[in-house]
Amino acid sequence: MHEDEEGPWLFTPGPINTARRTKEAMLRDFGSRDADFVALTGHVCARLLAVAGVGPDFACVPIQGSGTFAVEAALGTLVPPDGKALVLVNGVYGRRIARMCEIAGRNFKVFETEETVAPSGAQVAAVLASDPAVTHVAAVHCETTSGILNPIEEIAAAVARSGRRLLVDAMSTFGILPLSPDRVPCDALVASSNKCLEGVPGMGFVVVRLAALEESAGNAHSLALDLHDQWRFLEKTGQWRFTPPTHVMAALDAALAAYEAEGGRQARLARYRRNCETLVSGMRALGFRTLVPDPLQAPVIVTFACPADPNFRFEDFYAALRRRGFVIYPGKLTKAETFRVGCIGAIGTAQMQGLIEAVRETLAELGVSLAAS
Amino acid sequence: MHEDEEGPWLFTPGPINTARRTKEAMLRDFGSRDADFVALTGHVCARLLAVAGVGPDFACVPIQGSGTFAVEAALGTLVPPDGKALVLVNGVYGRRIARMCEIAGRNFKVFETEETVAPSGAQVAAVLASDPAVTHVAAVHCETTSGILNPIEEIAAAVARSGRRLLVDAMSTFGILPLSPDRVPCDALVASSNKCLEGVPGMGFVVVRLAALEESAGNAHSLALDLHDQWRFLEKTGQWRFTPPTHVMAALDAALAAYEAEGGRQARLARYRRNCETLVSGMRALGFRTLVPDPLQAPVIVTFACPADPNFRFEDFYAALRRRGFVIYPGKLTKAETFRVGCIGAIGTAQMQGLIEAVRETLAELGVSLAAS
Repeated sequence: MHEDEEGPWLFTPGPINTARRTKEAMLRDFGSRDADFVALTGHVCARLLAVAGVGPDFACVPIQGSGTFAVEAALGTLVPPDGKALVLVNGVYGRRIARMCEIAGRNFKVFETEETVAPSGAQVAAVLASDPAVTHVAAVHCETTSGILNPIEEIAAAVARSGRRLLVDAMSTFGILPLSPDRVPCDALVASSNKCLEGVPGMGFVVVRLAALEESAGNAHSLALDLHDQWRFLEKTGQWRFTPPTHVMAALDAALAAYEAEGGRQARLARYRRNCETLVSGMRALGFRTLVPDPLQAPVIVTFACPADPNFRFEDFYAALRRRGFVIYPGKLTKAETFRVGCIGAIGTAQMQGLIEAVRETLAELGVSLAAS
Repeated sequence: MHEDEEGPWLFTPGPINTARRTKEAMLRDFGSRDADFVALTGHVCARLLAVAGVGPDFACVPIQGSGTFAVEAALGTLVPPDGKALVLVNGVYGRRIARMCEIAGRNFKVFETEETVAPSGAQVAAVLASDPAVTHVAAVHCETTSGILNPIEEIAAAVARSGRRLLVDAMSTFGILPLSPDRVPCDALVASSNKCLEGVPGMGFVVVRLAALEESAGNAHSLALDLHDQWRFLEKTGQWRFTPPTHVMAALDAALAAYEAEGGRQARLARYRRNCETLVSGMRALGFRTLVPDPLQAPVIVTFACPADPNFRFEDFYAALRRRGFVIYPGKLTKAETFRVGCIGAIGTAQMQGLIEAVRETLAELGVSLAAS
C-alpha cells in the first residue's frame, strides 16, 4: 500500500509525490558549514543552471522558504526602489506579485486578463510603449490558478524589444518547458524544489543574470530575502548566509539525479504530457469539462468545472477520493465552481488511471450524474 | 558507523544531529492542504505552545525558512512603522536584528556590550528611561556568537516596568530554559525547528501574544514574512499561506514526541548540561581555555581560545577532527582567535568523550602544545 508507507497519491500542484530514494536522501544530517554541504550546494546549483540551459553569465541563488519567498526575493532585489514593475495578472500568483510590490513599496502597474485568457506579446508591447517608467516586467509562466500556460516566449520578445527587464515565475514549468535565454531572454527565472524537479518543499531558487545581480546591491526591502547578499556570501564562502534546509537540499540533489536518470527535460515533459492526456481524456469520458482552452493547457494542473448536479459537493467528492488514497486540489477560479487535478510529481499513467477509476466509483457512490452538466 | 549512515557527529549550534526516527518521519509525502497536514500543523503548534508554557492568550505561528526568517517576520510585523526598537547587542545575532531594522526602515537604537559581557536589567532600564520613543526591546537569549546567556529575566522585568514590549530571540534556548510569561513577560519568543527541539532545519516559529498580533495588521514590510497574515490564514483554514516544508514539519512532530519521551524540558536541559560539563572539563584538562565566564555560559555552545602554539591552525584542526567523524564550528568573536563546540542535538556523554579523545589525538598529530597558552 502506497498510502501506508509514503502517504496518499497527490494530484496537486506541489508539494507532489516524491520518489522513495529522494526521501531517503534525508536520512542523514549535514553540518551546514561543513565541506560536504558546501560541495552539495555547489553541485545542486550547477545542476540547476544546466537544467535552465544558461551559460556562465547566470548564477543560481538558492533561498530558504517556499517558492513565494524566492519570488519576493527576486522582485525586491532586482527591481530597484526607483524602478517600476509591470505585473501580468491572470490568476492568484500574478496577483500575489502585485501585492508583494505594494508591500515592498515598489511602484507597479498591473495588466490583467481573464483567468482563462493569456496576455499576448502585442498587448504587453502596447502597455510598455504607453508607460516609459516601467523598468521590469513580472510574468507567471504557468498560472496554476487555472493551469493556463502564458506565452512566455512572445512576452519575453516584447519585453526585450522595448529594452525592459523580465522576471519569470517559472515555479511549475522549470525543468519541463524550455526556458533558455535564447528562447526566453530574461533577468531571472524563479522556481522551487518541489514542483517538476520532484524534490521536497522548503526552498526556492533564482537563476539570475549576473549583470542584473551585480547592480542590485542595497535594493532589497528585507535582510532574509536579499538575493544579492545571499549570492555574495555564497560566492565568497560556498555557504548559505543563514541556516539552510540541509535535508531538503539533500533531497533535491537526489531528485536531480533521478531527473537526469529519467532522461532530463524531454523525458519528464513527455511523462507529464501522458499524465495530462490520460487525465483529461478519462475525465471527459466521465462527462467532466475543462476550463482552459486545450492549446493553452500546461501539463501541470487541470481545472475542471464542478458538475451541475446538486448531489455534487466538492467537500464530499474530495473526502471520498481521499478515502480511496487520492488527494486532489480545490479550485481557485473567481468566476466558476471548479476543482483541480495535478499531473506532476512521481506519478505515471497507472496512477492517473487509478484516479479516473476512483472518480468513477465516487460519482456512483455520491449519486452524481454528469449527463446534464 | 554513524558517519556512513547518518553523517558525522555535529558539535555545532544547529543544524544538529537528529534522531533516526525524526529523520524517518520524512519518508512520507503530505498534501499541503490535506486534512492530515492540517492536523499535523495544529498538533505541532499546540505542542510548541505547551513547551513555551503559555496560556490561551498566545498563538504559535510557524514560518518557512531559517530562524532568521522568523526573527525578521516577528520584528517587521510586531514593531509598527512608527515604532522604535532598542536592540541589545553582544554578538552577531543582536547585530543582525539591528540590520533587519535598518533594511525594513524601522527606527531603532542599539545598546551594545562586549561579546563576553551581558547587559544588565539596570542598564536596559536606564536606556529606556532616557529614550521615551522606544516602543520595543529586542534581545537575544543565548548569543551563540560566544555562547553567552543574557539575563533575560531581569531584562524582561526592566522592559515590563517601563511599559515597553519585549521580543526574544530564543533560538537556541527554546525547549531547555524556562521562558514562560511569568518569568519572562514578553510579546514574542522566536525559535526554530533545528536547535534544542532536535528537528531538522527549514522553519522557524513565533510564540506570540494574541493582543500584540491582533494590532499588527498591515505593519509588515514583506508579504512572505508577514506574521499577522500567516496567523490569520492559519486561524481561518488550518493551512499555511504558502507551500509549507511538509517533511520538516513531520520531522518536528517526531522530534517533539522524542522530547516528551525524554522527559521534557528538565531532562533535555540536564543532558545538555552534562554534555557541556563533559566538554568543558575535558577540554580544560587538555589545556584549553574558555572565553565566556562560567556563570554566563549557556549549555548550548562553548567558545574556546585557539592555542598560542604556531602549530595550531584552525583549518588543520577542523579537518583532522572531521576525518575522525567530528564536526566542530569556527569562532565568530571579533576580538580573539577562537573556535566553538556545540553541546546540543541528539548527542550525549559518549559523543562528548569521543570528541575529547579525538581532540587529544589531533593535538598530538599536529604537534600542538597547550602548555604555553
